[in-house]
Amino acid sequence: MNLSQALNNIKPPCQKSMEEAQHHWDRVLKPLDSLGQLEKHLIKIAGMTGSSQFDLSKKAVVVFCADNGVVAQGISQTGKEVTALVAENFTKGQACVCHIAKIAGADVIPVDIGIDSDKSIPGVLDRKIAKGTKDFTREPAMTKQEATAALEVGVNLALELAEQGYRLLATGEMGIGNTTTSSALAAVMLGLPVRQVTGRGAGLSDEGLARKVAVIEKGIALHAPDPKDPLGLLSALGGFDIAGMAGLCIGCAAIGLPVVLDGLISCVAALLAVEFNPLVRHYLLPSHLSAEPAGALLLERLGLKPLLSAGMKVGEGTGAAATFPLYDMALSIYNDMPRFDDTVIVPYRRYSST
Amino acid sequence: MNLSQALNNIKPPCQKSMEEAQHHWDRVLKPLDSLGQLEKHLIKIAGMTGSSQFDLSKKAVVVFCADNGVVAQGISQTGKEVTALVAENFTKGQACVCHIAKIAGADVIPVDIGIDSDKSIPGVLDRKIAKGTKDFTREPAMTKQEATAALEVGVNLALELAEQGYRLLATGEMGIGNTTTSSALAAVMLGLPVRQVTGRGAGLSDEGLARKVAVIEKGIALHAPDPKDPLGLLSALGGFDIAGMAGLCIGCAAIGLPVVLDGLISCVAALLAVEFNPLVRHYLLPSHLSAEPAGALLLERLGLKPLLSAGMKVGEGTGAAATFPLYDMALSIYNDMPRFDDTVIVPYRRYSST
Repeated sequence: MNLSQALNNIKPPCQKSMEEAQHHWDRVLKPLDSLGQLEKHLIKIAGMTGSSQFDLSKKAVVVFCADNGVVAQGISQTGKEVTALVAENFTKGQACVCHIAKIAGADVIPVDIGIDSDKSIPGVLDRKIAKGTKDFTREPAMTKQEATAALEVGVNLALELAEQGYRLLATGEMGIGNTTTSSALAAVMLGLPVRQVTGRGAGLSDEGLARKVAVIEKGIALHAPDPKDPLGLLSALGGFDIAGMAGLCIGCAAIGLPVVLDGLISCVAALLAVEFNPLVRHYLLPSHLSAEPAGALLLERLGLKPLLSAGMKVGEGTGAAATFPLYDMALSIYNDMPRFDDTVIVPYRRYSST
Repeated sequence: MNLSQALNNIKPPCQKSMEEAQHHWDRVLKPLDSLGQLEKHLIKIAGMTGSSQFDLSKKAVVVFCADNGVVAQGISQTGKEVTALVAENFTKGQACVCHIAKIAGADVIPVDIGIDSDKSIPGVLDRKIAKGTKDFTREPAMTKQEATAALEVGVNLALELAEQGYRLLATGEMGIGNTTTSSALAAVMLGLPVRQVTGRGAGLSDEGLARKVAVIEKGIALHAPDPKDPLGLLSALGGFDIAGMAGLCIGCAAIGLPVVLDGLISCVAALLAVEFNPLVRHYLLPSHLSAEPAGALLLERLGLKPLLSAGMKVGEGTGAAATFPLYDMALSIYNDMPRFDDTVIVPYRRYSST
């Protein structure tokens, strides 16, 4: 499916299924609304899938791995060779997200969408667009053709994984330099000063942070991107990982598959997807509040409230995978708790523990 | 073990084990501190258990069930008969906490510490102190002897469960009227107006809330409890469920077992335990932010930050059980991720994804 087909396929959520899911919740023998956001998220999933009876059992975190040319500007403590090293660790179960996903009963699907390496890594899906982006302080990070191709990698992965039986996906990423590209996109899309949306990533010093802010400001000044032109913005400042995640959000929306967002970088990608088509918003689920300053701002803009606030800042989709069990717990209550039967008066129809 | 033995047994956390756990985290191949609060909680557990290598695999939510005489004042929409009904549901896997605990791989242990019923419920531990408390607007909820006995039920359950191999416990409760008793204790211990700490429980109307506030104010005025006399306060206004949970916290602290708190009622019980001995604080772990107004105030007073903020208000220990997988995830990374070896220079010792 190409990008414009996917964007045209996105339907508004099914109101009837959402009403049925609300009615279903109201019949579960527990205090009304007592699972808070968890109830609302399952209602939202009913709207996405077009049914108040849905399955979430097969889950995966899709981890888009890519390098960023802007690393040449010294905005990271770590060399770009680490992207490939960690991508390989995903295949060995040796990255943080692997441990979290294992406990959550989910798969980790690493994707090379732009690692700067000639070597193909066994176990990592090879969807490489290019060996990293260009340095956005000198030229556009990628061409518009590359941006479209990277978005379509995400779109088509959503379709493939749905065919393989996955019913809940999450966006994850690995790429040295990607809080820099994300903060750049966040500043433009949120219309906020770079300083306000830029954080220390995995541990920059004050000096490092100042350099990162200056580099982002330079890139934005050079390209002067239009916040309402997501393809232009992505080409100018983006990363292939962000493009892949935005494409995954668009693909999920096109086929009615729920997608759980991780932190800063995932939320930037999701907002970019929403700029392509505002209906994408209805197919997004929150996970955690990123420790990066733009995290809360992006979630607010997306109309999502985080479930988890542990100050995590690993990336890789860790925050998203960490919330998978919460969705399973809510669904277990939704499906399997005793329900109020209209023909029987149950004394604790709406019991109060006040 | 009696109450004063337990209180005298509580040791400060082991600093050496905490330092070892911090050192262990610092050698895990991931960005430093990138799991945020999850890292800090495992360090705290090292301090509790006296070892940087600990097991959390066998977990349980202990659900103390009790009735509250103050229900006679019409502070709940629901009759007290529901306490026994829901207690029975715990034994059938039909309560919310059962579904959550099942996904978390934890056991649910319901305890009758004061249900107002003559019937013993198979599968519910019978530790009944009395058939419910008295109406605190007319007389003390319980005698000091009853309060001590109820605390000791919790203390000794901690010991028994530790002997059975449980390594992580959580406090839960079921008792119609127990957000009223908890709000009363919270108002006294926090030194705040009743109106500020009292919420709608499982769904009171404005009128119901006003009545609840008036009833609590009447009880506090009648007994004028000393906030620094936890036994007197518990006797005057408390519930047996709160006493059991406070006792469980004290028992866990006495033997170095971590205990995860649930929402409002659990946190009131934990703060009461801390009033008995301030060292108890070191053995408490947070879970979620209760939707009740006193929830955030109590966590702040306990020095705990919630991990989960889903607006849950079920009680039963649901919020606590919902966070169990997060502790498992953190421990899996702590135990099984590749670690930095001092003899080898690893390029991503402190990698930055900025």
